[in-house]
Amino acid sequence: MKRLIVGQSGGPTSVINGSLAGVYVEAKKQGFDKVYGMLNGIEGLLEERIIDLDDYLGTDENLELLKRTPSSFLGTCRFKLGKVEDHEDNYKKIFEILDKHEIDSFIYIGGNDSMDTIESLSDYAIEHKKHQNFIGVPKTIDNDLPITDHCPGFGSACKYIATALREVINDNMCYGDTKKTVAIVEIMGRHAGWLTAAAALAKDETCPGVDAIYLPEMAFDLDEFVRNVGELLEKKSNIVIAVSEGIRTSDNKYVCELLDTNLMTDSFGHKELLGCADALSRFLRDKLGVKTRPITLSILQRAGAHLASKTDLDEAVKCGSLGAKLAYKGKTGKMVIMERVSTVPYKVKYRVFDDIHKIANVEKKIPLEWIDVDNNYVKKELIDYIRPLIKGDVKQIYKNGLPQYLIMK
Amino acid sequence: MKRLIVGQSGGPTSVINGSLAGVYVEAKKQGFDKVYGMLNGIEGLLEERIIDLDDYLGTDENLELLKRTPSSFLGTCRFKLGKVEDHEDNYKKIFEILDKHEIDSFIYIGGNDSMDTIESLSDYAIEHKKHQNFIGVPKTIDNDLPITDHCPGFGSACKYIATALREVINDNMCYGDTKKTVAIVEIMGRHAGWLTAAAALAKDETCPGVDAIYLPEMAFDLDEFVRNVGELLEKKSNIVIAVSEGIRTSDNKYVCELLDTNLMTDSFGHKELLGCADALSRFLRDKLGVKTRPITLSILQRAGAHLASKTDLDEAVKCGSLGAKLAYKGKTGKMVIMERVSTVPYKVKYRVFDDIHKIANVEKKIPLEWIDVDNNYVKKELIDYIRPLIKGDVKQIYKNGLPQYLIMK
Repeated sequence: MKRLIVGQSGGPTSVINGSLAGVYVEAKKQGFDKVYGMLNGIEGLLEERIIDLDDYLGTDENLELLKRTPSSFLGTCRFKLGKVEDHEDNYKKIFEILDKHEIDSFIYIGGNDSMDTIESLSDYAIEHKKHQNFIGVPKTIDNDLPITDHCPGFGSACKYIATALREVINDNMCYGDTKKTVAIVEIMGRHAGWLTAAAALAKDETCPGVDAIYLPEMAFDLDEFVRNVGELLEKKSNIVIAVSEGIRTSDNKYVCELLDTNLMTDSFGHKELLGCADALSRFLRDKLGVKTRPITLSILQRAGAHLASKTDLDEAVKCGSLGAKLAYKGKTGKMVIMERVSTVPYKVKYRVFDDIHKIANVEKKIPLEWIDVDNNYVKKELIDYIRPLIKGDVKQIYKNGLPQYLIMK
Repeated sequence: MKRLIVGQSGGPTSVINGSLAGVYVEAKKQGFDKVYGMLNGIEGLLEERIIDLDDYLGTDENLELLKRTPSSFLGTCRFKLGKVEDHEDNYKKIFEILDKHEIDSFIYIGGNDSMDTIESLSDYAIEHKKHQNFIGVPKTIDNDLPITDHCPGFGSACKYIATALREVINDNMCYGDTKKTVAIVEIMGRHAGWLTAAAALAKDETCPGVDAIYLPEMAFDLDEFVRNVGELLEKKSNIVIAVSEGIRTSDNKYVCELLDTNLMTDSFGHKELLGCADALSRFLRDKLGVKTRPITLSILQRAGAHLASKTDLDEAVKCGSLGAKLAYKGKTGKMVIMERVSTVPYKVKYRVFDDIHKIANVEKKIPLEWIDVDNNYVKKELIDYIRPLIKGDVKQIYKNGLPQYLIMK
């Protein structure tokens, strides 16, 4: 009897359930007798909240629905395991529960913090001669995991952002030269600007594209921002600007701090960024006397499964599958990665990365040579990198005009 | 030689260009020799900014792209013509330009304010024995035009709202009982809650739906709101609430006025409502100590052409077609309306409404008997009314993973 447990952790994406489907199908195929799901990641595992995935995913219809369901089917958590010396009780409890249910393998689908969990549990198992093995499957809309070419979840979020921006750009043009208008679109990505860069994809022969892109990798200067927008408005009447929620000054102040809006801090110590587009929009309106509109894509960009990229979903499933294979082989402390073989034609290889210590808690930012700092834009290399990831559409399963999901009842 | 001019006015929608396509195709078929477009509505017409639509819409490919292009292809305006006695110069100028270009018929695709323009120009023509005739084609996401069963543009916005809410609801559930979360989704609709009511459509066997709906037709009470959300949170951990941007107290104060955020006023004297979800979200967080998230659908809900309803687009085209027929027949001061013949199976008749005086500047609100005030929700009658309008999907024309548009070059 071989048994696997899988969990989802961190912020959800449009295709994280694709990876879950990949893990489940391949795990059964490899020969796992039981595939369990932990509810709300290790936070739920510590309370022994475990389900048998056969009860939910036993039919092809449910598997297809699962792949099209945004957010984390198993629920998620932002639970930080911490160092063994500080929280050994939690480590012990997790292994007690794994032992009790005779679980051999543990797969965690997540981002930086989740890979930290895999690293910690795998190290603990080795040190304490536990037989369980631990595998990470990458997931994050932010695309900030190192080593892997990109992360499942990123492509679909980019497709959502580029599509939404095309619609915003068209809408913002509707007054033409009769009214100067500036739309400021706030995009997720606290420290890395990958998602905000996807705004550049909006441009093609049927859409003029965004007029400027402000990334967290560039130092933000409020006066320069106002001057740049003023210059853009001299050339054309309707401007759309993409800003990362994480833009900040060279002395590391967020825009909302500059403009004195409230801030909160989440359980990992990340600052909760509120209303950067809103703050800039009001500031610009006062300074330039033009009509401004803040648009915050918010969680729509990570939950917009109806706009999922087929490339992204297929990759999410395959990363999950490879995770299950590695788990069955007894590998531990490893993460599935994608290696880009070529961009045109687009081709990736799925591989295993041996040393998760090099992944956990490392944030991959945009290489500075891919950013056009002088023009507040991104270079062709960056656009070429993202473009293949948004290709292909996932046919939704509709009922009464609305896409259908799989939810836990 | 018979010549027609068509314009678009007011806020854009996902399918207003469908009506433009309908006007163009049918006008040519009826026998108009020229079909002109005025750029930016009557504001552009007053500057003689006119194009020959043959130059843009001459191919089937372009017509199909036009139908899938959000926002107003011809550009829009919010120009109020005013009373003849105050602005006779504008009236005279419009007729001079129409005479100069030998234009016989004038179609305006728009909402309340646009029908006011049609009414004023038609009355002026009759009084001054001008030969031109004026026809209105309805358009508004707000669905607040009287007489017609509903307005083209409304169904697609509803489909966008219901789909986005399903994704938000799924995302908001991801922490389950480990964290109390409240998402507050702000939906357009200043005085009429039709769009906000569409939030109710999110619910079905694969989605638990929103937990409360706050409409501008109900008096809003801040203390009661906090109490209601508190009660909901006792029953379940993850709550999603749909609020109209226009909710206000019984003494007519908007939420942002209560909570002291800034307000601006547009050229029609409408108050610009800022951050109702944002204000409520912060207020709730302080009062209840739970994680709250404001989500403002903003212009995405009116520009989300990638989620257009096929029913809505087909109706928009047909309303445009009937407008062109009426124009060719020389009718004036009339608006195209839809009459619902039956809801199951859904069937409408396209008709002409004779007296535009009864339409212009009248706002249709939700009948109070369709609102469940006690439970902050809407009744089945209202859901049944909206449901058929979101059915069917418009196959997009994709290139590089993004929907393609027709834009003026």
